[in-house]
Amino acid sequence: MIFVYTGNGKGKTTAAVGQIIRALGHKKRACLIQLFKGKEYYGEQKILKKLKDLDFFSFAPYHPLCAKSTERTFVRGEHLFALESVKKQCAKSLDCLEKVLKEKKYALIVLDEFNIALRDKFMKSEKLIDIIRTKAGKSDIIITGRGAPKSLLKIATLITEFREIKHPFQNGISAKKGIEY
Amino acid sequence: MIFVYTGNGKGKTTAAVGQIIRALGHKKRACLIQLFKGKEYYGEQKILKKLKDLDFFSFAPYHPLCAKSTERTFVRGEHLFALESVKKQCAKSLDCLEKVLKEKKYALIVLDEFNIALRDKFMKSEKLIDIIRTKAGKSDIIITGRGAPKSLLKIATLITEFREIKHPFQNGISAKKGIEY
Repeated sequence: MIFVYTGNGKGKTTAAVGQIIRALGHKKRACLIQLFKGKEYYGEQKILKKLKDLDFFSFAPYHPLCAKSTERTFVRGEHLFALESVKKQCAKSLDCLEKVLKEKKYALIVLDEFNIALRDKFMKSEKLIDIIRTKAGKSDIIITGRGAPKSLLKIATLITEFREIKHPFQNGISAKKGIEY
Repeated sequence: MIFVYTGNGKGKTTAAVGQIIRALGHKKRACLIQLFKGKEYYGEQKILKKLKDLDFFSFAPYHPLCAKSTERTFVRGEHLFALESVKKQCAKSLDCLEKVLKEKKYALIVLDEFNIALRDKFMKSEKLIDIIRTKAGKSDIIITGRGAPKSLLKIATLITEFREIKHPFQNGISAKKGIEY
């Protein structure tokens, strides 16, 4: 089955992480491939790395439009460089997905923030969809991130839209450790 | 902060579970109080029970309208009995919440499926809201479940509506181990 968690509301990545915990509880193996999530920045990364039966891969730690990627010294040349670098990293994440699917040992594979990569054209949705369609086999796949493209929604078995009804950022409150990251 | 995860889409409980994992990763303490989740039925229960810095309580394992609660021998008398029993269990879960808040040691407290208990009048929303308002202190609280009442939404800092856009149950596919439970 192919699950898409999209929308602008909070909870998409944590929902996928909780789904991994659920699968592991039934002694199923899981795999997490993350994009744009830094290194040891998000609390869950520290816990997930220690869990048995979960394999964890991370690519393209910084989105080129994220302040951290250029440490706020954002100039045109650097932006282009970052873009090319991110595209290469995203290609590697797809190679990783293909390899992982070939092993046929995972009940659940989470592709965290891959929707963002598709939305921002860092990878082609046809390529991702082709890999999933031809190689997923019995693995369930969850794809998270805002802006899931229509072509992906079309092949999804389940779609949840996470709708932001109210958010503290609306009132000028900033990201909190242990909550937003 | 008070977070409400509601709506008919998949992912509310797993999002709260993922949030616990995130908090634990930053060495924060967390507490999970669950309603209507059976005993060792959901995969995550087995993993969560083993995690350091997480305390886990469960009340009212079966909703009176859930087939499992009466093992499909559902008669009027039993239903009324189950109802009273569930109300008592829900009262205990609120006592537990008060006790837990008094200890002031948890950065995050998850009240899983409490929205269902409010929706179905197993507990009064005024009572829950009063406890949260007067005793939450610096703890962040996540309340999950369909049908969150307006009074709770009003005091929430963050609300995500989990909207079901597509679901395999729509096509007659049934609940899958490691995915739905």
